[in-house]
Amino acid sequence: MELNMLEAKFLSLPKDVGFRTSSYPTSLFGIHSYPKSNSSKVICARVSNSATSNKVATSTLLFQSKINGINEAISRTLDYFDDEYGGVIVNPDRLPSNPNVFASLLQSSLSQWITKGKKGVWLKLPSEYSELVPMAIKEGFQYHHAESGYVMLTYWIPEGPCMLPANASHQVGVGGFVINDKNEVLVVQEKYCAPPYVGFWKIPTGFIHESEEIYTGAVREVQEETGIDTEFVEVIAFRHAQNMAFEKSDLFFICMLKPLSSEIKVDDHEIEAAKWMPVVDFVKQPWIQEDSMLKKVTDIFIARMGKKYCGLFAHHLISKFDDRSSTLYYNVVNTRDSNCIGA
Amino acid sequence: MELNMLEAKFLSLPKDVGFRTSSYPTSLFGIHSYPKSNSSKVICARVSNSATSNKVATSTLLFQSKINGINEAISRTLDYFDDEYGGVIVNPDRLPSNPNVFASLLQSSLSQWITKGKKGVWLKLPSEYSELVPMAIKEGFQYHHAESGYVMLTYWIPEGPCMLPANASHQVGVGGFVINDKNEVLVVQEKYCAPPYVGFWKIPTGFIHESEEIYTGAVREVQEETGIDTEFVEVIAFRHAQNMAFEKSDLFFICMLKPLSSEIKVDDHEIEAAKWMPVVDFVKQPWIQEDSMLKKVTDIFIARMGKKYCGLFAHHLISKFDDRSSTLYYNVVNTRDSNCIGA
Repeated sequence: MELNMLEAKFLSLPKDVGFRTSSYPTSLFGIHSYPKSNSSKVICARVSNSATSNKVATSTLLFQSKINGINEAISRTLDYFDDEYGGVIVNPDRLPSNPNVFASLLQSSLSQWITKGKKGVWLKLPSEYSELVPMAIKEGFQYHHAESGYVMLTYWIPEGPCMLPANASHQVGVGGFVINDKNEVLVVQEKYCAPPYVGFWKIPTGFIHESEEIYTGAVREVQEETGIDTEFVEVIAFRHAQNMAFEKSDLFFICMLKPLSSEIKVDDHEIEAAKWMPVVDFVKQPWIQEDSMLKKVTDIFIARMGKKYCGLFAHHLISKFDDRSSTLYYNVVNTRDSNCIGA
Repeated sequence: MELNMLEAKFLSLPKDVGFRTSSYPTSLFGIHSYPKSNSSKVICARVSNSATSNKVATSTLLFQSKINGINEAISRTLDYFDDEYGGVIVNPDRLPSNPNVFASLLQSSLSQWITKGKKGVWLKLPSEYSELVPMAIKEGFQYHHAESGYVMLTYWIPEGPCMLPANASHQVGVGGFVINDKNEVLVVQEKYCAPPYVGFWKIPTGFIHESEEIYTGAVREVQEETGIDTEFVEVIAFRHAQNMAFEKSDLFFICMLKPLSSEIKVDDHEIEAAKWMPVVDFVKQPWIQEDSMLKKVTDIFIARMGKKYCGLFAHHLISKFDDRSSTLYYNVVNTRDSNCIGA
């Protein structure tokens, strides 16, 4: 049964998630192209020999049905939606719980979808349907991604390169430089840290949540670790590192924050100590002086304090193409109060 | 059997992937704290009632063994490594293929790990072991993430908040402004695009690969779509949008690129047409004039062309803490050739 695409949202598959050639409405200048097939990671299942043989085998699964007095051969399929890009999304709310029934229906569905010239197949299996996972893998599906409550599997039908989009590739961290009017920087010592960092006073840092703004995340992390309320000023630099946790990459945004309170309340779970430290003492720390990365960031921070540096402000903008609000980080252009010369 | 941690790398679990309180050696200012338990997404399995009852049931799985002439009760476990944070990593190379054997061993392993005060359990199941997935779920494990060849499941043993780190939360896109010495900008029309974009000349865009630099990705995308070779100059702005594909977020970096060639070769697969377009014509397009996001980015681009704007350059730095090379994006400070006044 083919259902209307309108209901597909609950699948966590926005309708703009399709193939590489599909539109990506929130893209700044039109369309992102999805990752190329020459990506380091193949994210599609290929039509394997076993799947091909299934195409034949499934013909035995055709059922006779009498509709309007005419005998028609129709094959039963899993409940699914068509997506906008020639693919199908299996309805996770109407999965058969019996693995054998699922396996048969998956075979006959694939057979029909191949006949119909369908492209990618999205199969989201909630945790309570984990017994269906081996059936899907056997049929030629591959894991695409997983979250705590489900695993998503995919299958790419056509010959040629796989056009399905990859899942997220980066984690995002933030660090906050908070300076008070006594030229003191807010610093913390982590409770549990690697030997090189013991005794090191650092700025508060942390990961942002999956659906959190960079500026919100920086303010939250500082508040959680030190109890200090702050206001985001700007991103002064960011670092990009490859192959971090789970082979994904890491983006780390260094933010200037303005303190709105002064009394420190340390988060006992992860912070050993926190304090306001004179900037000169912060900079003098050997960890900073001896490390090119830390030294450079500190230089930027000092230049920013001296109003000799331009960072990127956060501006909220809504694109008319999708009515979606997003945040554009850019410098202030052609204004007298540019932070290059004094914010 | 407990093996040495040294071999854990093949698990794609760098040794710094542990719990929130563990060190994160490449963090710019020490330690990122892992996502808080009040994160929007719970990523750990909790010790469920069924798992608790399993703790009792597994006592029947103890085996008698005679070591040095003494009878000792030892329980069999899955092959695993200790990680540095009090957790265990199940060895994916020595999984029993029989699901029933696996289920029994998982139960007795959990029982032992609980007794030993272990914390998180990482269970990586390659695709060929998909039959073990339902067994792990039944035992209380939850999906953590998946890639095409495997699914990773986790289990959090202690009372209290889950401290396991989340998987990647963002996808990263790039767009390239390429200007030649005739004040023409390199633009493309996508082959397949949503109705609002039909006829829109846009800059080349795309996602970066999982282990690719922003500057490399921008140059690659431009080359793939148009055949034009370029050199990265700087990031002039970036956009952050929430809840995009698969509910993850999106970071999009707008880059200035310098052309190194001029002859256009269109990528037939995804690009309808590409050309060098006078900047005045590019800006005049109604799509840009009527959309606040596109208009702002174009303003920034024009300001940058007029050398009245500061972007962020890419600098390669190695931190002495981990000998890892990463890229720091920042503006040029205190130099006469700052791009604020003319690069």
